[in-house]
Amino acid sequence: MKARSHSPSETAASFLASALTIESRFQTLGDVRSWLTECSEHQQFSVRRIPFAELDQWHFADHPNRLVHDSGRFFSIEGLRVQTRHGPVKEWQQPIIHQPEIGILGILTKVFDGLRYFLMQAKMEPGNINLLQLSPTVQATWSNYTRVHAGKRPLYLDYFLDPRRSRRLVDQLQSEQGSRFFRKRNRNMIVEVKGEVPLADGFVWLTLGQIKRLLAFDNLVNMDARTVLACIPLASPEWRFIPPPQLVIGGDQVEAFGRPVGGFQRDLLLSAISGVSPWRSSDEILSWLTELKTGCELSVERIPLDQVTGWERDEEQIRHRSGQHFAVIAVDVEAGNREVVHWTQPLLEHFGYGCVGFLTQKLGGQLHFLVRASLEPGNRDLFELGPTVACANPEQRIKTRTVPAFLDLFLDPPAGCVRYQAVQSEEGGRFYHFQNRYTIVEWPSETHVEIPPDFMWMTLSQILELARYGAFNIEARNLLSCLDLQANPD
Amino acid sequence: MKARSHSPSETAASFLASALTIESRFQTLGDVRSWLTECSEHQQFSVRRIPFAELDQWHFADHPNRLVHDSGRFFSIEGLRVQTRHGPVKEWQQPIIHQPEIGILGILTKVFDGLRYFLMQAKMEPGNINLLQLSPTVQATWSNYTRVHAGKRPLYLDYFLDPRRSRRLVDQLQSEQGSRFFRKRNRNMIVEVKGEVPLADGFVWLTLGQIKRLLAFDNLVNMDARTVLACIPLASPEWRFIPPPQLVIGGDQVEAFGRPVGGFQRDLLLSAISGVSPWRSSDEILSWLTELKTGCELSVERIPLDQVTGWERDEEQIRHRSGQHFAVIAVDVEAGNREVVHWTQPLLEHFGYGCVGFLTQKLGGQLHFLVRASLEPGNRDLFELGPTVACANPEQRIKTRTVPAFLDLFLDPPAGCVRYQAVQSEEGGRFYHFQNRYTIVEWPSETHVEIPPDFMWMTLSQILELARYGAFNIEARNLLSCLDLQANPD
Repeated sequence: MKARSHSPSETAASFLASALTIESRFQTLGDVRSWLTECSEHQQFSVRRIPFAELDQWHFADHPNRLVHDSGRFFSIEGLRVQTRHGPVKEWQQPIIHQPEIGILGILTKVFDGLRYFLMQAKMEPGNINLLQLSPTVQATWSNYTRVHAGKRPLYLDYFLDPRRSRRLVDQLQSEQGSRFFRKRNRNMIVEVKGEVPLADGFVWLTLGQIKRLLAFDNLVNMDARTVLACIPLASPEWRFIPPPQLVIGGDQVEAFGRPVGGFQRDLLLSAISGVSPWRSSDEILSWLTELKTGCELSVERIPLDQVTGWERDEEQIRHRSGQHFAVIAVDVEAGNREVVHWTQPLLEHFGYGCVGFLTQKLGGQLHFLVRASLEPGNRDLFELGPTVACANPEQRIKTRTVPAFLDLFLDPPAGCVRYQAVQSEEGGRFYHFQNRYTIVEWPSETHVEIPPDFMWMTLSQILELARYGAFNIEARNLLSCLDLQANPD
Repeated sequence: MKARSHSPSETAASFLASALTIESRFQTLGDVRSWLTECSEHQQFSVRRIPFAELDQWHFADHPNRLVHDSGRFFSIEGLRVQTRHGPVKEWQQPIIHQPEIGILGILTKVFDGLRYFLMQAKMEPGNINLLQLSPTVQATWSNYTRVHAGKRPLYLDYFLDPRRSRRLVDQLQSEQGSRFFRKRNRNMIVEVKGEVPLADGFVWLTLGQIKRLLAFDNLVNMDARTVLACIPLASPEWRFIPPPQLVIGGDQVEAFGRPVGGFQRDLLLSAISGVSPWRSSDEILSWLTELKTGCELSVERIPLDQVTGWERDEEQIRHRSGQHFAVIAVDVEAGNREVVHWTQPLLEHFGYGCVGFLTQKLGGQLHFLVRASLEPGNRDLFELGPTVACANPEQRIKTRTVPAFLDLFLDPPAGCVRYQAVQSEEGGRFYHFQNRYTIVEWPSETHVEIPPDFMWMTLSQILELARYGAFNIEARNLLSCLDLQANPD
């Protein structure tokens, strides 16, 4: 029998230490931002909207009607008919992205001088509002890494495919937007390499603390990076009983790896460590979700794209008659640092800013997050757990008076209660200018919050446990990835 | 905020205490067996095979062709076309049971004088070889409890539907046979009642220890009871760090609730308590499952029942041309203690005995179970985790030389290595005479076992953790429910 070479507690401690460290042996945070600006300036990107007729290697296929790649690979855009008993709208039709392959989103990690670093890439995606953002080491669809489009093989891919070349610290299937993708999942990986790793052009080693600081800025860290970062265990369940020596918990103060952790950051850390909520046990949370799924009916049927009621296609877009929701468009891309330097593809265009927010509150002395069970047509198992609010089109919802619970709180948060706020982009390889304003609000602990039956308070530890098994949706994971345990910068 | 009224550790301790107790304030085990025999003798049951044409309220519908209830409720029998890259057979067609509703399988529990008892029912199911078996308090399809067939409302149902009437100790969605059902799940519940519970005719209060002893006999405890019992946490994860006072772990000996627990039972208990395997961490197990799912392709398509290649229908059955697998038949039932006293229905007939077995071995001093990732067409998410062997037709597999790994070991287990063996029935409401021989074998710890890539050693604690989230299939859960922590009877 091969003995285990590490303990989950040691791995979590090395993640936590990196999350608390902004000093790097490689470069300062200022250097990283300058480097990103430089990358943007030195590379030639152009993204141009084109009519569908100018799409190269993409066409509208028949039986059923859908927009597909000539190879049959990558993704297609199809129609969906949805019926449900849950929520205010009982029936609708919409275009949806169908991509049955499981892609890899992977970050390579390595310990230098006792501190863990992550290999990130400055990468262009055509749908990003600023084109270039910090990305995982590898973003590869199955079509990518089996080289269907005959481009260059992604760098560093073998570290993720060949288990002899690395140790897999995180390796989970996680979903993408259930309102835009039909049952799409990616393999989210963090793999550790012991030996020498060559540093390619356009890549950079960062501490987790540096990445967290970059997440405080708008649109610097892309969605694929955020979903992988959200899977990182920053605490081990056994720390509740046996904290590691570098973690000193006493009274109001926590000291971790020689640094004081106070205020909201302290509450976050303790919420990640304590496996037990004074509010609801994990069994009770599971029961709540079971009850919701049992009582829910959801019927989804794939239909021809040209028969989606309420949507119209012209030469340049497929859009909803109301002008709202999103539109299917086509773009022509020229780029210098992608596997293929020139290509065309469809994208889903979005308008304005979406709103994604978590309400938090201390209950029984422990920081809790208000989680909402969210039913989306592309979900694999009815409900996924989401943030308190995830709303792609707040202005439309206000106009049509279908405002979801707690939206107001995030559109106009009370003074002194905002613990995090930034604008982040959704996946620029599928979405055109899809931005959400991410907000974390902390409500005073003495205030009672009335919550509807599809909401549940959870500790961060309960969230991380369920998230390992794919229970949390991408909106929730993306926002959780922004949580920073470091003291606020001056 | 409402404070928590109990701790998961206290709940687990009360389950464990009951599992170790055979002495009851109500009746001895001998009394229970006599009572079961009496129930069988005093009730009039008759199950008669009939031609499909004599089915009342069931018919073959068209577009697509399928066997359905006139109400459109209950279940239907349809066709399925399956294609996969995984396993020796790449493509096949078969009939399958389609039942999109989530039913309730629920056991009511109550503490009398400090000891936990479970309310079980002597219940007839037409497909059982001995008709009457011990069942959960409630087995109710959604059609049942919304009273589609206008029968009597199941007794005790309100305790499970109304959260004010009980505390939900177990409440999980769990799958049924993925080779026979299309994505079927039930809500497995154990609810605790504090107040007076009237004892209806045909019901009995048993300790968990008594039920475990009855599971040592052939065909006494039905499948629906076993799947619920398998969800019971017999240990709490925190016991690894803080064992309850009633549990004394020292050296080779464990004392639990004043009783010595030794030998295989001791190893079982310690395997359920220790969250950490010296073999593989939970993250590594998750990674193994992620890799299998990523590399797997499974395409299932529902097709008309009369177009299922290789299957033939005559007046009395739909059977495979080889005479193997299973057959769809119809039965006429007359019964005295069911909600409806006379009815007809289809069933799936099985031939001979299936084989379900877990190989166990001590690795690094800790008892491990050899788990196999199993791909079945009716699974909701590609692989479910199963026992080492689950084979409905061992004789056929030997004849066709497609013997699955480790089957030999269970058909002819080495002397002194069998830790459990009994014949148990699968769900008698859907299957006609479907019996499996359940076996647990312990392999000497010094022997090296070569395992294929779709197998994984896990501790009982790792199994229970994953099983909570529905990762284990019904064959595995059914066998695990038979594990008895009591010393072997003399």
